Amino acid sequence: MSGTDYRKELICEGPVVILVEPQLGENIGMVARAMANFGLFELRLVNPRDGWPNERANAAASNADHVIDATLVYDDLPGAIADLQYVIATTARQRDMLKDVLNPTEASSILRRAHNENTRTGILFGRERWGLHNDEIALADVMVTFPVNPAFASLNIAQAVLLMSYEWMKSGQAELNQSAFRAPDSEVAGKGDLQSFFDHLEGALEEAKYYYPEARRERMTNNLRSIFTHAGLKELELQTLHGVVAALERRWLEKQNKKSK
Amino acid sequence: MSGTDYRKELICEGPVVILVEPQLGENIGMVARAMANFGLFELRLVNPRDGWPNERANAAASNADHVIDATLVYDDLPGAIADLQYVIATTARQRDMLKDVLNPTEASSILRRAHNENTRTGILFGRERWGLHNDEIALADVMVTFPVNPAFASLNIAQAVLLMSYEWMKSGQAELNQSAFRAPDSEVAGKGDLQSFFDHLEGALEEAKYYYPEARRERMTNNLRSIFTHAGLKELELQTLHGVVAALERRWLEKQNKKSK
Repeated sequence: MSGTDYRKELICEGPVVILVEPQLGENIGMVARAMANFGLFELRLVNPRDGWPNERANAAASNADHVIDATLVYDDLPGAIADLQYVIATTARQRDMLKDVLNPTEASSILRRAHNENTRTGILFGRERWGLHNDEIALADVMVTFPVNPAFASLNIAQAVLLMSYEWMKSGQAELNQSAFRAPDSEVAGKGDLQSFFDHLEGALEEAKYYYPEARRERMTNNLRSIFTHAGLKELELQTLHGVVAALERRWLEKQNKKSK
Repeated sequence: MSGTDYRKELICEGPVVILVEPQLGENIGMVARAMANFGLFELRLVNPRDGWPNERANAAASNADHVIDATLVYDDLPGAIADLQYVIATTARQRDMLKDVLNPTEASSILRRAHNENTRTGILFGRERWGLHNDEIALADVMVTFPVNPAFASLNIAQAVLLMSYEWMKSGQAELNQSAFRAPDSEVAGKGDLQSFFDHLEGALEEAKYYYPEARRERMTNNLRSIFTHAGLKELELQTLHGVVAALERRWLEKQNKKSK
């Protein structure tokens, strides 16, 4: 799925990602990669089991070196979030705490608004097996949870970071419905051009004695026009269809001409 | 992040996920797991490099056995989508094709609406390194791409499946996509039927020497398939188009027959 454009400037902004006591270097590397994919870059580790730096993390990061190289390590969570102003804790389980639980879209929208107001934000992710402890969640402003299959909820930490990073990126797009690129510009064909195509096609079909029985002519015509109308044909596509009909006609005309010579 | 509740019923519904020539068993397993997390369950593989079943896939699937056990293998893409009615192709790159490009939210909204109308849908994912070929994308109704950091776009296949599966799950929770249920008058044509029409049309065009110059054949074929794919053709409409091509062909065949008598 690689579509990296090295001429583009690397996006580096947004919430800090904080992993609390991560165990596997591979996961840390995958987290760095997921962050880079969606423009995040500040990674902090609280007490990583295998220390830091970590060769396995580098290998799994798939060239997200700018994230790996800038990663900071802390002894405890309070130290890791000391300079932040708004912190969200991710959780997969219901917690018996009086704290709002958001979905990732809502959480990202809040993070984006805070970002635009120069508020320093962060997202907490817990241990691979156990997530965050309640006393850690207590340090966060709100919780976020993912809308997973209740009977199969096995998001790993890199996947959770991927989803939050993706939602962060989406929250920054001017419109909800914007994609990274659009189909090449070709105008949708005008109704006049479409009518010209109908004339061409129907003329060819007339010659070919397609309209039989005569009583069904109107219905057949409407059905056919319907097909090419709901297709939202572009101008270039209409030219292609003209070519198709012309090719099928030409074959016949050539035979006619040969005969008359 | 595990929060699995084994008392809950497993959600199993939604679009088929089709991996075209996947290479690594680990990736297939991670795909199965991502699908299961968000309630998808039908996985199809086109020509997997290391065959099937695959031990590494099982290991990486993290108990998504219901997905792994039901996985089907196909020799080619047309076979893998023959029973589907609406197919979306994922891509990381701009393609020079006249086909709509959606973001994952838009795509999931369409898939959800189709699902509610009992339309059989699928999502195509390409090879780890190269994605989908243009002739494969030509078989899809629309393209979807992910809003990634342009200077660091290295989503792997399991991550791409995760994001689409997540958006699928979200689309079922949002009430945004509610529309009055309306049974279609005629079923949307299956991809297998569409392929039969391509065979018919392309055969006729071959006879008519439409594909000239030879170097443009592939491009001409993809453009033409694209036109009839994004039209959302119904079964009855496909019959109409068969009739059109047959009529234009017949005219020529009749002349041939008269000549040979």
